[in-house]
Amino acid sequence: MDAPAISRIVPLLEYLDLAGIAVFALSGAVLAAVKRQTLVTFIFFAITTAVGGGTVRDVLIRAPVFWLHDNSTILMCVAAALAVWFTPASLWKGRTLLWLDAVGLAAYATYGAAKALAFGVAPLPALGLGVLTACVGGIVRDLLAGETTILMRPELYVTAAALSAALMVGLLALGLAAPVAGALAALVGFLLRGAAIWRGWRLPGYRR
Amino acid sequence: MDAPAISRIVPLLEYLDLAGIAVFALSGAVLAAVKRQTLVTFIFFAITTAVGGGTVRDVLIRAPVFWLHDNSTILMCVAAALAVWFTPASLWKGRTLLWLDAVGLAAYATYGAAKALAFGVAPLPALGLGVLTACVGGIVRDLLAGETTILMRPELYVTAAALSAALMVGLLALGLAAPVAGALAALVGFLLRGAAIWRGWRLPGYRR
Amino acid sequence: MDAPAISRIVPLLEYLDLAGIAVFALSGAVLAAVKRQTLVTFIFFAITTAVGGGTVRDVLIRAPVFWLHDNSTILMCVAAALAVWFTPASLWKGRTLLWLDAVGLAAYATYGAAKALAFGVAPLPALGLGVLTACVGGIVRDLLAGETTILMRPELYVTAAALSAALMVGLLALGLAAPVAGALAALVGFLLRGAAIWRGWRLPGYRR
Repeated sequence: MDAPAISRIVPLLEYLDLAGIAVFALSGAVLAAVKRQTLVTFIFFAITTAVGGGTVRDVLIRAPVFWLHDNSTILMCVAAALAVWFTPASLWKGRTLLWLDAVGLAAYATYGAAKALAFGVAPLPALGLGVLTACVGGIVRDLLAGETTILMRPELYVTAAALSAALMVGLLALGLAAPVAGALAALVGFLLRGAAIWRGWRLPGYRR
Repeated sequence: MDAPAISRIVPLLEYLDLAGIAVFALSGAVLAAVKRQTLVTFIFFAITTAVGGGTVRDVLIRAPVFWLHDNSTILMCVAAALAVWFTPASLWKGRTLLWLDAVGLAAYATYGAAKALAFGVAPLPALGLGVLTACVGGIVRDLLAGETTILMRPELYVTAAALSAALMVGLLALGLAAPVAGALAALVGFLLRGAAIWRGWRLPGYRR
Repeated sequence: MDAPAISRIVPLLEYLDLAGIAVFALSGAVLAAVKRQTLVTFIFFAITTAVGGGTVRDVLIRAPVFWLHDNSTILMCVAAALAVWFTPASLWKGRTLLWLDAVGLAAYATYGAAKALAFGVAPLPALGLGVLTACVGGIVRDLLAGETTILMRPELYVTAAALSAALMVGLLALGLAAPVAGALAALVGFLLRGAAIWRGWRLPGYRR
């Protein structure tokens, strides 16, 4: 598929971008709650977690940074922070953070790879960019809070992002319609990450 | 106010940029001193702390990165590092780091928001960009040194940056002259952060 | 030397870029091995460590990001990760990580300074950009793995990068042929860092 064809596809996938923003914003706010921060810090964490991945992607592919030219992304992040602040804490307890992060991971890996292709990036770097941008939100969130980054957890994490991004690059190359390819790639990556959270699936670690 | 009008305003605010560079450079060098580093590391910390915030801002708004096209910013940072290295340590003890950081925070939040507006960024993201860029210098400094980031301290920090940035966006929208708006916005944010340092002012943390 | 003359020079120095990619990729994979990570995390660490420095450099000087437009850089990083995964661990034990990092440091400091000059950056910021980009790979690698950054080690580190970058800026200004200047600058910086690793050379730390 040629580049103009791919670039017409990206608007069809905006639901993945919105899903990534919403759930990463929530996950940032939830971590701020765990850390007993103030409402302002909730908002700060929500924004940086939600826009971190997409911002790095846009800077690297030289696209206009997606959240700068209208107020809607910031408003979504503020809404997410308020939601976590005002609703009962029991909603956000336990593994909620991991599941929100899993949705964001799969959505951003898929959308990131597609947007990179649309801006003329070669297939393997597009896959890499999908992974990198899916992981940046969680990494920034964890570094700011002084947590060990989620990358180092034993269960499958980077692998799930790589699966979504690779499927997206592959399915588009096979000529699948973008909304179908996007939904499929995001779903499969999410299921793999979900199995990792639920069942503790993991790849073998290095042992020598 | 239209974008060209705003862009004529930015040069009038360069004193805020210079203040941010100088005090963040000093604060980076002071942390290097606390960590018993070498003179070269003093310079490295001074530069990364001083230019970190403005660099992220310029990359995101697609402006030429402000410190690359002449030697003066680097020379200021080297001078700051030498100043901390050669003067009596008693000058830099205690809460000096916090106060320097407070000046840089207010100056960069104000200038960052104004420069973002001048490059066509919408009001809420411009506010966010003021906050983000004011905080990046301190975050990078603390991460490099292996310290908990200043963001997580209980007293008002992000809030003070947000106040300066919001005032700047608001006062310019109301038509105030840029130097007046800039001085006012930076002063009020600094006073709030100062009260947080001096009196321990804080917002309520999350408790559920 | 004028800017077009310098920009013709950069292709002559690509061996430094390739050396930086290869050894930083290996060093990222070796740290993943030390941390008992999975093969996917090996690849992730190899890529981020190898491309981190050059990516920051390219974004700041507004060059196209060097690894996005063909598949070769990613393939090199995958090969490095596989090499560390499948070969005997004894090859990578002890100080291997430090020596690989030393080669990458000198190569990237030299190439980074030259590429910055070629894109019109002033001499002192070009020196700074050489240092910054040489150090970013190692910093990202260490932050991701939750290690104290290599910057804070007592032996000469930033200093060696600064020496390579300063020599490169100086020798090109004196009119030396690029491949000669590049080889010389990288070699001298590597020898200084090597002496720091082997003999424990260090600058005096701050003591007051």
